Amino acid sequence: MDQEAAKRAAGEAAALLVEDGMTLGLGTGTTARWFIEAVGARVADGLQVAAVATSLASAALAARQRIPLMELGAVGVDLAVDGADTVDPDLRLLKGMGGALVRERIVAAAASRFVVVADESKLRSHLAGFVPVELLVFGWHHTMTLLDQTGASFELRLDSAGEPLRSDNGNLIADGAFEPIADPEGLAARLDAIPGVVGHGLFLGMADLVIVAGLDGELRRLEPADGAPAALS
Amino acid sequence: MDQEAAKRAAGEAAALLVEDGMTLGLGTGTTARWFIEAVGARVADGLQVAAVATSLASAALAARQRIPLMELGAVGVDLAVDGADTVDPDLRLLKGMGGALVRERIVAAAASRFVVVADESKLRSHLAGFVPVELLVFGWHHTMTLLDQTGASFELRLDSAGEPLRSDNGNLIADGAFEPIADPEGLAARLDAIPGVVGHGLFLGMADLVIVAGLDGELRRLEPADGAPAALS
Repeated sequence: MDQEAAKRAAGEAAALLVEDGMTLGLGTGTTARWFIEAVGARVADGLQVAAVATSLASAALAARQRIPLMELGAVGVDLAVDGADTVDPDLRLLKGMGGALVRERIVAAAASRFVVVADESKLRSHLAGFVPVELLVFGWHHTMTLLDQTGASFELRLDSAGEPLRSDNGNLIADGAFEPIADPEGLAARLDAIPGVVGHGLFLGMADLVIVAGLDGELRRLEPADGAPAALS
Repeated sequence: MDQEAAKRAAGEAAALLVEDGMTLGLGTGTTARWFIEAVGARVADGLQVAAVATSLASAALAARQRIPLMELGAVGVDLAVDGADTVDPDLRLLKGMGGALVRERIVAAAASRFVVVADESKLRSHLAGFVPVELLVFGWHHTMTLLDQTGASFELRLDSAGEPLRSDNGNLIADGAFEPIADPEGLAARLDAIPGVVGHGLFLGMADLVIVAGLDGELRRLEPADGAPAALS
């Protein structure tokens, strides 16, 4: 089984959690897309759901799958499923390589149950690497100065044309490399408090379940404070 | 001396802090405008400055005063001057009735010295009243649900046509009434951590100086950890 097959296995396993009548949050990225496709297959078989997309890309994919889309309402959604770039043993996540981190966070926070799908390469002993931050265009240059004071050198993310990438919210994305992130909760609070920062890719204490697919085909379920993850199948 | 004259006195006193060659942050509102007009008068007399405006309204006023405008750069500004809706004895501020709270916060944080100008009616024994929050349009309804969990009932701010007000950043503004705010630092951290919240009106530990004008014409300077505020004049 290759990595893509593992991503697909995780996404399809999550789609089995969907029940008739549920409202869903649809994540963004190469693993979440398998969830969306699997939900689409169930919708074609008569499953009734409505979904909030975390990006324009996922909304377009869902529309092609004829998954009814809705706006996020006051009561949130029943189940949100999304990928992650890194998952640590405490199920803390690093997200945002796809650039949709803020909408992903909003939808994850609005879900009664937030399920993460990942291939096993995403499991790490600790969070490290690029922490993405979404920031307002106004004052972005000084916001970068404040971001640099958190201990990493941040750089604006560029699009394929070499221009500063704009998020779906119209803001900029900057990435700072941390090796490792010694205190994720402390860093998250520092980032949250920086004026001009709209959101960041540290998802701490949010995942209710992580479905991990191994290259050997094994599926594992990781749950918070669950010392002995059980095999799904 | 009426309240408007007191606002003017505070704004004009702050303009005396401006030195040739400085970069400035221009606040927004009915007191900051007197600062902008007083700086404009000094510019007409040959003062050399460049300024970042915290709102389109203040930028327009500065342009009429022929104050050269600049974008906020990596090094910030030398001096930012802005008003406040409430100032407590620890110089904690409640701001944002003008809707420019996020840009005001970005510029205040980027200033080597942040000076607040206020008439004495803004001085209170504790922070209380409406706390404004800027939030993304995406998921706003659920963000309001999360805001309500902080202990106040938040309502979207409307414009004069009865439509949801958009900030200069294109986002929404919601106001929650707190009577009083028992723990400003705790509330600020909770608001910062809510996905979808871009910024809020609690400016804590930011003011380097508060210039207060009394209705009796007296000017007072309040500085952090300054138990005995000295009269300015």
